[in-house]
Amino acid sequence: MYYAGVDIGGKNVKMGIVDDFGNVVSSMEYKTLMERGYDAILLELIENIKSLCEQAGFDFDELSGIGIGVPGIVNSNAGLVMSCANLNWKGVDLANDVKNLTGKECKVCNDANCAALGEQRFGSGRNYKNLVFITLGTGIGSGIIINGNLFEGLGCAGAEAGHMGIQVEAEDICSCGNKGCWESYVSASALISQTQEAVKKNPNSLLAKMCKDGVSGKSAFAAAREGDAVAKNVVDRYIGYVTYGIIGLTNILHPQAFVLGGGIANEGATLILPVKTMLNEYIDNNGFYPYVDVVCASLGNKAGFMGAAALVM
Amino acid sequence: MYYAGVDIGGKNVKMGIVDDFGNVVSSMEYKTLMERGYDAILLELIENIKSLCEQAGFDFDELSGIGIGVPGIVNSNAGLVMSCANLNWKGVDLANDVKNLTGKECKVCNDANCAALGEQRFGSGRNYKNLVFITLGTGIGSGIIINGNLFEGLGCAGAEAGHMGIQVEAEDICSCGNKGCWESYVSASALISQTQEAVKKNPNSLLAKMCKDGVSGKSAFAAAREGDAVAKNVVDRYIGYVTYGIIGLTNILHPQAFVLGGGIANEGATLILPVKTMLNEYIDNNGFYPYVDVVCASLGNKAGFMGAAALVM
Repeated sequence: MYYAGVDIGGKNVKMGIVDDFGNVVSSMEYKTLMERGYDAILLELIENIKSLCEQAGFDFDELSGIGIGVPGIVNSNAGLVMSCANLNWKGVDLANDVKNLTGKECKVCNDANCAALGEQRFGSGRNYKNLVFITLGTGIGSGIIINGNLFEGLGCAGAEAGHMGIQVEAEDICSCGNKGCWESYVSASALISQTQEAVKKNPNSLLAKMCKDGVSGKSAFAAAREGDAVAKNVVDRYIGYVTYGIIGLTNILHPQAFVLGGGIANEGATLILPVKTMLNEYIDNNGFYPYVDVVCASLGNKAGFMGAAALVM
Repeated sequence: MYYAGVDIGGKNVKMGIVDDFGNVVSSMEYKTLMERGYDAILLELIENIKSLCEQAGFDFDELSGIGIGVPGIVNSNAGLVMSCANLNWKGVDLANDVKNLTGKECKVCNDANCAALGEQRFGSGRNYKNLVFITLGTGIGSGIIINGNLFEGLGCAGAEAGHMGIQVEAEDICSCGNKGCWESYVSASALISQTQEAVKKNPNSLLAKMCKDGVSGKSAFAAAREGDAVAKNVVDRYIGYVTYGIIGLTNILHPQAFVLGGGIANEGATLILPVKTMLNEYIDNNGFYPYVDVVCASLGNKAGFMGAAALVM
């Protein structure tokens, strides 16, 4: 059977037709152009799904369902997008609208939750029925899988690990209203700030030289690989923050694995290995608790639409 | 039907016979005398269950099962007590031993998880199928109920919210190996330290006068009720720490309710109301997420054995 998965982002829409085994039989990516408004985006989305079916060599009538991931607050039980700042959507009845326009089953979910499900069904989390997925990107997204199913909490308001507080004595207030949110230590934006701070304090370091045309989330990792001690220090501290949140989540959920995605996870083993080592040294402390794996996400930017498709499988 | 619930503590064993509706038809409490060793404790435990059946007016043969809570690391799937420092037990096959000696079904679980289940089935959490139970006692215990069932994580190693880190820049290392554990801010021992610190800094305060014969977890609350500003400050800060951890848990699990038990929860509304207000003000920030209730546990020291009985219902 074939399912359509759609990942609507503020800039681009990614979509694909996926079969039960996670094969992507056709896919496309195009500009969201959010300023067109909801109706135009919706109609083009459906037309494009029809094209993808044709491209894959079967009739739209044979499509089994449509899953959609949206970067906002989504009540997936009701199929409602409560709020999505990137698209300027509020209280949009997306699942029903798609169903009415197509006659197909439609499910809608938060985009990070979709990516979590995608990685668990078809990606590097496929050996684990219980995992936590974290995207280390501009912000922090997270998804929790328990017994092979998404766990979203009451009103789909859970699985927001980025806003778990890790510094009660922090002074800055996050946009969520909390202080010391994990996100403000481990997002790419946070790493950039941490790097900028180190550059300012160490203007003669290799890190500072490598950052003279600008700082990105890759700068500290790149300079650390060249042997710069200042950069190494930034990276170590950053990895410590990542691990600290993961230890907190382990004490609550003790999943089989953490799957790390997002731009910073492209650092691969440089990031994953120390996190995995520190986490399991911590777990070993009491000698009775099971090992937890830490792996890189493997589906890249397909995770969202593949997981969205999995919503209706 | 009738079920035996047992709550084995380091000092006392509490047990009762419970029916399907949560009526305790007979109960008793006696000294554990852990120095007698496992076998003696186990044999007396079974004899006492038999007495309780008799006392309740039915034959032991009619008992439907035995549930046991133990204050340690328990693999409840296997019925094994992996480690229990208070009883000096290690790798004890408790569920099977009880089954072999009695012919009854037996389940074993961590004591805080039992108390969580007790409160959810029969106590102040009975209106909620998804809740987090927290005991604010000498240490911090916690239990997570999802869809009416205990959630324990892989190897029953989850639901240890006391060791979720809330201060990444903390210096003191917890016995668990983590730093800045929530427990080290909100346990009764932590509150006592916070009170002692305030007394030292404010030797002329009413709090200091009220503490001249010693500091307990009640001292700051009592002096705050008398209007002492120093004590009020200690209490406010303590309540802030409690709320901070609860906000973290809400971002991950978003349960319907938090049920607070343990000695400090005896402060009642003085503790519960500000926590509930601050939590829901935080939730209201984004305008779409559902209200979370915060309530006091209602079963007192019966929660453990009532929840243990619920394990076999």
